Amino acid sequence: MSTGPTADGRGAAGTHGQRAVEITRVVDGSAQRTRDVAAEEEPLEIRLDGTPFVVIMRTPGADRELAAGFLLAERLIATPDEIGLIRHCTGRDGTDASNVLDVTLASAAAPRVRDALAGKRMVTTNSSCGVCGRKTIDDLLAGVASLPTRWQVRADVVASLPEALRRAQPVFDVTGGLHAAALFDRSGGLVSSAEDVGRHNAVDKVIGAQVLMEQLPLDNHLLFVSGRASYELVQKALVARIALLASVSAPSSLAIDLARRGGLTLLGFVRGGAFNIYTGAERIELS
Amino acid sequence: MSTGPTADGRGAAGTHGQRAVEITRVVDGSAQRTRDVAAEEEPLEIRLDGTPFVVIMRTPGADRELAAGFLLAERLIATPDEIGLIRHCTGRDGTDASNVLDVTLASAAAPRVRDALAGKRMVTTNSSCGVCGRKTIDDLLAGVASLPTRWQVRADVVASLPEALRRAQPVFDVTGGLHAAALFDRSGGLVSSAEDVGRHNAVDKVIGAQVLMEQLPLDNHLLFVSGRASYELVQKALVARIALLASVSAPSSLAIDLARRGGLTLLGFVRGGAFNIYTGAERIELS
Repeated sequence: MSTGPTADGRGAAGTHGQRAVEITRVVDGSAQRTRDVAAEEEPLEIRLDGTPFVVIMRTPGADRELAAGFLLAERLIATPDEIGLIRHCTGRDGTDASNVLDVTLASAAAPRVRDALAGKRMVTTNSSCGVCGRKTIDDLLAGVASLPTRWQVRADVVASLPEALRRAQPVFDVTGGLHAAALFDRSGGLVSSAEDVGRHNAVDKVIGAQVLMEQLPLDNHLLFVSGRASYELVQKALVARIALLASVSAPSSLAIDLARRGGLTLLGFVRGGAFNIYTGAERIELS
Repeated sequence: MSTGPTADGRGAAGTHGQRAVEITRVVDGSAQRTRDVAAEEEPLEIRLDGTPFVVIMRTPGADRELAAGFLLAERLIATPDEIGLIRHCTGRDGTDASNVLDVTLASAAAPRVRDALAGKRMVTTNSSCGVCGRKTIDDLLAGVASLPTRWQVRADVVASLPEALRRAQPVFDVTGGLHAAALFDRSGGLVSSAEDVGRHNAVDKVIGAQVLMEQLPLDNHLLFVSGRASYELVQKALVARIALLASVSAPSSLAIDLARRGGLTLLGFVRGGAFNIYTGAERIELS
C-alpha cells in the first residue's frame, strides 16, 4: 500500500501538540500574568472513500496513523492492504484541510466495509474541507447564550475545593480509578457530588441530580472535577449555565477556546492552595 | 415530574463503585498475592420511550441522574418537566435489569425529541433487558481469538517502562495535559510512541503506525499507557494481538474482566519499581 503525502507536512512523531497560552497564576490569593502551554485539541474528520465517517477530537500529528489504528480497532480493516491511500483533504475552497483525512479503501475491501458501515456511521455532517476548532466551537455554541458576569468568587474559596471534594468522596482515593465531580455554591459549600470511571459521567450525574430536582439553571454554582478539563466538560457546564469550571489538572486548547467564547471562567491545576486562570478572570476576587 | 423507583435500590449518592479484586503485587521482582479494589464499570443502556438510544459505560449508581444529565448535555431536553418518568427496565425474562433505564418523555416534548433523534441515534442493538458486563464482553470478543501464552517478560523490564516512556515523550511532562502510549519489545526496547489529549487516540496512533508499516500482528510487543486502563484500551490491544497492556494507573473492573477472557496480561500502577498484575501473571518472569 502507499499512504500519500500529508497535507500539513507533519510526521508521525514530532513535538507538536502544545500551544502557548497566557494565563493568570494565583498563589495565596495573589495573581500574576504568565505564560503556560496547553495540550492542543482539534477535530479530525475521517472519510472513507469520500464519505464522512467519524470526527475524532485529537491532538494534531500522526493523523494517518490515528486513522489506521482507529479503523483497525473498529474492525473495519484487518490488514494494511485493505487501505489504498490515506491523505489529507485537498479542497479548492482555500480552507485549512489539515483536519480532514480521506481514506481510500482497496477495491477488494470496499464492499465489505460499506456493509459494516451501514449500522455504524458516526457522523453525517461536515461537507467541506474546512473542519476546524473555530467551526466546532460555532457548532457547540449554537443556541447557547454567552454567560454574563454577575458575581465573583474569592480565590481562597477556589483553593479550598480539592479538600472539600476529597472529604465528600471517600471512595475516590481508595481505588485510584474513579473520577469525581462536585457542584459547589459560591461560598464553597458542597451542593452535591458524584463519582464514575468516566469524568463525563461524573459531571452528568452531578448536573442531572439538579435537573431532577428542578434546580436549573445553575448560574450561582461552581463545578469542580478531578483530572483534566476537556471541551466536553466546558460544553456540559455551558448548557447547565454554570459559569465557573475548575479542575485539578490541565485544560485542552479547545476547552480554553470554547470557555472564552462562552463566557465561562475556566480554572486549572487547582491544588496546593494555588490555581491557574485560563479564561474569565473577572469572576475571581483576589485578596 | 416523578422519577419512579430504581430497580436496584441505589440512591443518588452511596458508596458503590468499587469491586474487590485479587491481584499479584510485584515489588523489586518479588510477587505477593493480595487484595485490591477496582473501580466498577458496567454498561448502561438508555431508552427513550422504549427505543434504545445510547449505551454508556459507567460506574453503577445515580443512574437516573446520569440519564437526566446526559439528555440535558445532548440538548434533547431543556427542562425537567420534559421528562415523564425514569425507571429501570422491568423485563420478564429474569435477567438483571439494573443496566437498562427507560426514560418516558412528556407528551409535549416527545415529538421534538423524536425529530432531534433522527440524526442522532447512537445505538440500535440490545433488545432485551439483559445488558451486562458479560454480554458486553461477549460482543467485544466476537471474532477475537484468545491470546496464547508464548513468552515471558522480566519484571524489571516492566518496571523500566515509565522511565523509557518519559525519555521518549519530552512534551509529555511540559503541559500535563497530554496522554502518552508506547509500544515496546519484550526486552524493553522502545518501538514507537505517540501522545494525544485522548488516551485512546494515543493508542490508535501507536498501533496505526505499525499497521501502516505492515507489522501486524504485534504478538511480540508490550503496550504501555499513561493514566488508567479502560476496557477500550484492552479491546484495542486484543484486536492488534498485543498480549501485555501496562498502565501507570488503575484498570476498571470491565478492563480486568475483558483482559481475563481475552487471555491478555493486564498490569497497573506501574511506577516506582513496582506494579500490580491483574490478569495473565504467567507472562511475568520474577527474579
